[in-house]
Amino acid sequence: MQVNIAKKAAGEKAAAYIQPGMTVGLGTGSTAYYTILRIGELVRGGMALQAVATSADSEQLAREQQIPLVPFAEVQGIDLDIDGADEADEQLRLIKGGGGALLREKIIAAAAGEMLVVIDESKLVKQLGRFPLPVEVIPFAWELTFKQLAAIGAAPVRREQEGQPFITDNGNYILDCHYRQIRDAAVVETQLNSIPGVVENGLFLHYAVKLIIGYADGTVKEIIRHGPARRSF
Amino acid sequence: MQVNIAKKAAGEKAAAYIQPGMTVGLGTGSTAYYTILRIGELVRGGMALQAVATSADSEQLAREQQIPLVPFAEVQGIDLDIDGADEADEQLRLIKGGGGALLREKIIAAAAGEMLVVIDESKLVKQLGRFPLPVEVIPFAWELTFKQLAAIGAAPVRREQEGQPFITDNGNYILDCHYRQIRDAAVVETQLNSIPGVVENGLFLHYAVKLIIGYADGTVKEIIRHGPARRSF
Repeated sequence: MQVNIAKKAAGEKAAAYIQPGMTVGLGTGSTAYYTILRIGELVRGGMALQAVATSADSEQLAREQQIPLVPFAEVQGIDLDIDGADEADEQLRLIKGGGGALLREKIIAAAAGEMLVVIDESKLVKQLGRFPLPVEVIPFAWELTFKQLAAIGAAPVRREQEGQPFITDNGNYILDCHYRQIRDAAVVETQLNSIPGVVENGLFLHYAVKLIIGYADGTVKEIIRHGPARRSF
Repeated sequence: MQVNIAKKAAGEKAAAYIQPGMTVGLGTGSTAYYTILRIGELVRGGMALQAVATSADSEQLAREQQIPLVPFAEVQGIDLDIDGADEADEQLRLIKGGGGALLREKIIAAAAGEMLVVIDESKLVKQLGRFPLPVEVIPFAWELTFKQLAAIGAAPVRREQEGQPFITDNGNYILDCHYRQIRDAAVVETQLNSIPGVVENGLFLHYAVKLIIGYADGTVKEIIRHGPARRSF
């Protein structure tokens, strides 16, 4: 696999924030890949840490890298989650789920004290929505859920793979919603959350505290969130 | 099975609102049972109608009653959904899902033009929450979702059946949330909807347009919603 300098720069930079003893969330995708490789080096260099994985793929990679994995039943807390994104804006709002792992990624982001997001420069956008927003839905009566999404202007298209519906790790479908421009992400999130049959959506609005952007020349830029990251209950 | 006069009175009364040609949602539970029996009589008496079922149980009963069922892929719209509830207040807000079918019931209620709710008098409450609120969650990392629910004061308990986790028709778990008193149902609903891993919750706040309450003497009382039923997008 050819090294992508921008992704590698961002991915490795994030690993520098890991402290000994931490429980780390391992993201999914081509930039988080480099974070996991770097964490593997840290572990083999003697750093004590443990991890949870956001997908079967990242779990497999972690095993290859000899990173100790902890079962969810034994997780007391996740100190730091490091994951990629399909789009990010300068307010650290994200679209995730191009790979289909949005739900697992969101569960781990929600459980984490802090989420760092690693992207290459091509993922940084002025406005979210060019990347189709993935929405995970229950297969039962998905046609009705599809109609509800169409009615709010989400322009859904069911994701297919080799002529069959794409199935998530949780046994659900993905409807990719072609908004093109998401003007008010908070409103869209509320609308999606209130539709029965929608399991989760790819908007991560309140999670990232730091965005690490890699450039083709190997440099990185960081954007830090101002104000509280998580909605308060 | 011994006839329950209150449930029978409410269940049969609801069927009187069905017009020829309608597509009807068939609810689940011991009161909706009587609605389905009455619909069977209407069909066998010559009324043209078709139905969709909210559970495997109600689908089976509909087949026995010779009620024509329409596949979800062919449903153009649902004119009327008739279903029961575990609790209902006088503002027509409901807790549903004691039987574990809350998600399918909510998908159909959301797709229906109108929802009628049939209960016996024991289900009418001043304040929701004595009945544990069922919350359907993804099995993946459910321990983390459990902790999120505990953190907002939901007092979750995983539902078990014969010593094993109860599994919904969608392959998920149910966490029964022992609120005891739900003072602001809209806030609770928003909190639950925003937790990743939560698929759906048993609060039906904006769906019922008419509540039909059956009494032990065979009489019924109706409460009609004032104002719009569905949240507007």
